Amino acid sequence: MLAQSLKRALIGKPIENVRAQEERLIKTLALAVFSSDALSSVAYATEEILLILVLAGTAALYLSIPISLAIITLLAVLMISYRQVIEAYPNGGGAYVVAKENLGHKFGLIAGASLLVDYVLTVAVSMAAGVAAITSAIPILHEHRVGVATFFILLVAIANLRGVRESGKIFAVPTYSFVTGLVLLILFGGFQYYSGHAFVGTGKIVNTSLEPITMLLILRAFSSGCAALTGVEAISNGVQSFKKPEAWNAQLTLVFMAIILGSIFFGITVLARVYNVVPSTSETVLSQLARGIFGTGVIYYYIQATTALILVVAANTSFSGFPNVASLMARDGYIPRQFANKGDRLAYSNGILALAFFSIALIVIFGGETHRLIPLYAIGVFTSFTLSQLGMVRHWQKGRGRGWRRKAFINGLGAVVTFIVLTIISITKFTHGAWIVVIFIPILILAFLTVRTHYTNVARQLSLSNFRDPKPNNNWVIMCIGGVHCGTLEALRYAKMIASNGNVNVIYVNPYESEPVDIINKWERFGFKTPLEIVKSPYRDIIGPIIDRVKQIHQEHPDDFITIVVPEFVCKRWWEHLLHNQTALILKARLKFQPKVIITSVPYQLS
Amino acid sequence: MLAQSLKRALIGKPIENVRAQEERLIKTLALAVFSSDALSSVAYATEEILLILVLAGTAALYLSIPISLAIITLLAVLMISYRQVIEAYPNGGGAYVVAKENLGHKFGLIAGASLLVDYVLTVAVSMAAGVAAITSAIPILHEHRVGVATFFILLVAIANLRGVRESGKIFAVPTYSFVTGLVLLILFGGFQYYSGHAFVGTGKIVNTSLEPITMLLILRAFSSGCAALTGVEAISNGVQSFKKPEAWNAQLTLVFMAIILGSIFFGITVLARVYNVVPSTSETVLSQLARGIFGTGVIYYYIQATTALILVVAANTSFSGFPNVASLMARDGYIPRQFANKGDRLAYSNGILALAFFSIALIVIFGGETHRLIPLYAIGVFTSFTLSQLGMVRHWQKGRGRGWRRKAFINGLGAVVTFIVLTIISITKFTHGAWIVVIFIPILILAFLTVRTHYTNVARQLSLSNFRDPKPNNNWVIMCIGGVHCGTLEALRYAKMIASNGNVNVIYVNPYESEPVDIINKWERFGFKTPLEIVKSPYRDIIGPIIDRVKQIHQEHPDDFITIVVPEFVCKRWWEHLLHNQTALILKARLKFQPKVIITSVPYQLS
Repeated sequence: MLAQSLKRALIGKPIENVRAQEERLIKTLALAVFSSDALSSVAYATEEILLILVLAGTAALYLSIPISLAIITLLAVLMISYRQVIEAYPNGGGAYVVAKENLGHKFGLIAGASLLVDYVLTVAVSMAAGVAAITSAIPILHEHRVGVATFFILLVAIANLRGVRESGKIFAVPTYSFVTGLVLLILFGGFQYYSGHAFVGTGKIVNTSLEPITMLLILRAFSSGCAALTGVEAISNGVQSFKKPEAWNAQLTLVFMAIILGSIFFGITVLARVYNVVPSTSETVLSQLARGIFGTGVIYYYIQATTALILVVAANTSFSGFPNVASLMARDGYIPRQFANKGDRLAYSNGILALAFFSIALIVIFGGETHRLIPLYAIGVFTSFTLSQLGMVRHWQKGRGRGWRRKAFINGLGAVVTFIVLTIISITKFTHGAWIVVIFIPILILAFLTVRTHYTNVARQLSLSNFRDPKPNNNWVIMCIGGVHCGTLEALRYAKMIASNGNVNVIYVNPYESEPVDIINKWERFGFKTPLEIVKSPYRDIIGPIIDRVKQIHQEHPDDFITIVVPEFVCKRWWEHLLHNQTALILKARLKFQPKVIITSVPYQLS
Repeated sequence: MLAQSLKRALIGKPIENVRAQEERLIKTLALAVFSSDALSSVAYATEEILLILVLAGTAALYLSIPISLAIITLLAVLMISYRQVIEAYPNGGGAYVVAKENLGHKFGLIAGASLLVDYVLTVAVSMAAGVAAITSAIPILHEHRVGVATFFILLVAIANLRGVRESGKIFAVPTYSFVTGLVLLILFGGFQYYSGHAFVGTGKIVNTSLEPITMLLILRAFSSGCAALTGVEAISNGVQSFKKPEAWNAQLTLVFMAIILGSIFFGITVLARVYNVVPSTSETVLSQLARGIFGTGVIYYYIQATTALILVVAANTSFSGFPNVASLMARDGYIPRQFANKGDRLAYSNGILALAFFSIALIVIFGGETHRLIPLYAIGVFTSFTLSQLGMVRHWQKGRGRGWRRKAFINGLGAVVTFIVLTIISITKFTHGAWIVVIFIPILILAFLTVRTHYTNVARQLSLSNFRDPKPNNNWVIMCIGGVHCGTLEALRYAKMIASNGNVNVIYVNPYESEPVDIINKWERFGFKTPLEIVKSPYRDIIGPIIDRVKQIHQEHPDDFITIVVPEFVCKRWWEHLLHNQTALILKARLKFQPKVIITSVPYQLS
């Protein structure tokens, strides 16, 4: 009851099936819900590029501009590719569905595993970066960053358990506030620079042993910057959440999002360069920029607050995406069935809880530090990008509709480009943590296949074409008693009612040497004339003699049911159960694999 | 199966009831079993006295001699007192029984709680000191002392799960080897001293800010030394384990034990004084003495090894005592019933496991350090000493047999002396940890009373004089299905068999909007002509509609039984259960307090 009330207070009243249709999003809300992940990554992408470049000293920093241009080109390729995904899969495609339908189940599984890993990492990275924005402004929170990140993950999880549209409303404000703040920063920062009133960053690099500017270093910096592209695919996964016409609205939203993302990312990278800002352990690059351009005043705190907020809600993209993919895979039998069903607020509750659990685990393991999580991040994303685009090429080839060659070429280009990036990331980040993902994704796929095999086996064994079991003639009822009292008599009445012909075999297992006179006497008075059998147990084992009896009956009448009736006390308080023997549970565990044996506890409620 | 095999390998085959009589001990074995606790305390008692005295500098060390003489006098008083306990309670008295019978239940509970706490501490302190003996000889084990102590506790627990007589055999050798080693040490050490070939201890005191020699300091040292007396009562608790005549044999063993204990304790204290040995953090006093007198050779290692061994087996006294007291209190209804029964090796398995658990917890909490555990130790012991002696005074007063005045005086003296010591310990050790025990014992007593109240309530409610329940006429059977398959049909057959008149109400709760066509069709073909009811659940809740139906039937027919039949898959591997919904468990939890409702899962075994 208490648990029920708490659940209602946190996630609200149940929502009816018929309201599922209503829970759709207009474009401006959808932009907020599905773009917070992609947009928020500008908060850390520039910094991650610089973090690699500084290894080669100040001279390497100018490379951030061409690297960011390369990433923006990649973004354009992805945008054009994913517009076609939306067109082809108006019901919400996503890498899992596209890969499964066009490339077969195996590729579908690779895409699915990559997506799930990616969603978990999105939550972890976003929360870690969001907390970094907070601790840049409020340094005393730095040592509590794991706790703060955990708190925010739980907050977002609860918002999502309330259902999708309410989440949209909650998350629209931060997304737009963040974009406004950064546009202001870029415009004002650019104006200051050209008007000569600019501040100059420290440009100080702590590292003294510099690496040379090699191709590998540049590619590592590029790989790190690719974190900016995570979340671009979110809109194509959630087409069914848009108002009609879904596909058109989703495509428009995607284009808007790409333009905003590209502009802000480039703007911040240029600003960081011209103002000579260098990463520090205690303050983010964005915080240094905002502090330098606006001073530590209201606007600075506004930018830090909205940065933190959008990063926190960025996790929301995953809280829509993860449960969706999990439910699709659950319906295909690769993930436990409990993930396929919507909860009473029309959200996939189990998927949401699982995502919260795993992302909190990552935050704890990696101490809530963004730069330690980044190397694990992009592999899942780019694997699903590649498979999705490859699937699209097959899709157009199969369909051969109007302009299929052009469309296949566009997606083919997307596939090639993202595969090259995937290779670059895997190689340059392998020893920095990417190996964990490279090992984990195959393990996950193996788990999917094991689950699927289980469900297939169960379905085969339960198939009605096999149902030729001989008809049972009797229900043999054995009742074991430990004393004669109200609970025993209630159970005896039930036992007589369900036994064929009312014949119950009542057994008292006597672990003592002496005759149980008290029990025999009471049974004669109260036992409804049912015979009582007393079995000696020299080894003080109560369960063994009962099991022997069951096996004996089963041997003589293999087609019949055997029911063991056990009286059970129901106590008001949980700890009171510890004060009584749990005979029914032990019998159930011991007889689990014995066919046609049913253990029934007849409860007797105590106040 | 695996668990069963493992259990057999560890603790041996079951022992029959009739062999209980055989499992008795001859005096020399009994001395080993019941005296290892008391005798082993000489390994640390002298050191604990010196640890307090060094606070006042070298000048205070001579006080160890008069303090040890005071403790030996106390030992004599206890021995004489406990001889009378054995005489009066040949069936095995112990503080719990004596206090309960003579002073009433409340004093019995205080004694019982004190004893249980004392037993747990005996195991913890002995193991900590035993590991200290090992790390004195092998310093690299010092940092692993918690792990080593835990390992030995589990070892002793397993030995005890094998049953009492075999334990006796296992533990006789270390006890006698230890005594031999120490006698050798004292004789040889004394000889060396008088022949002038003696070594001289460092006498170095690390502490620089010295305390003055106050009465409080002397009493604290005395309190610490009283740890030597713990375990003296063990023989009186275990009289029934002796061969006949039990009382006489037990008394003789007690006297032997007291003489050995007193002599060795005094001998070591004198040696430590004349050789100017001072406690160190890395080496025990006993180890310093043995190393100085014999050099670091075979005899030194023999003494360290036997010291460690006897301390490890000293825990054995508690592994006999704790389960015994717990079983007595369980029979009186103060402790869960599961502690009252002997396991299949004639040992009280649950008591043994509980003791192992709590003592390991103490070792972990206090980092396995003897001197941190000592302040908690003696309070429980002396509380039970006092109550036991006080109970004996009442016992003689009531009986008024031959010489009752003399006997009452002896026990009265014992009560007064032990009560004074108890007061001294409580005051001088309060802030050093004794407060934990002072708080914990009342909490434990409260728990005993709560358990007892529960059992009394249950007995009252189950009493057959109340059995006037109206006779039920019907067993209404509801079956909830999630699909139509072999498992469903098996359950349906069972449901029809146990339902009055074979009428089963089969319900499919439909969480979707659309009609469940597949299920309806299959049911028509396979459902044995039973009607299928489809209940819509707009909030996607499967359980709610079933519960509503149960409550409705119960309202109309309050005297009848209602059975809910749920098909259940039994999977071979444990994790496979996670892949299926646990409807029966949820129904059971939700309908626990609904009278006359029985939830029955009909298993269907899958391979």
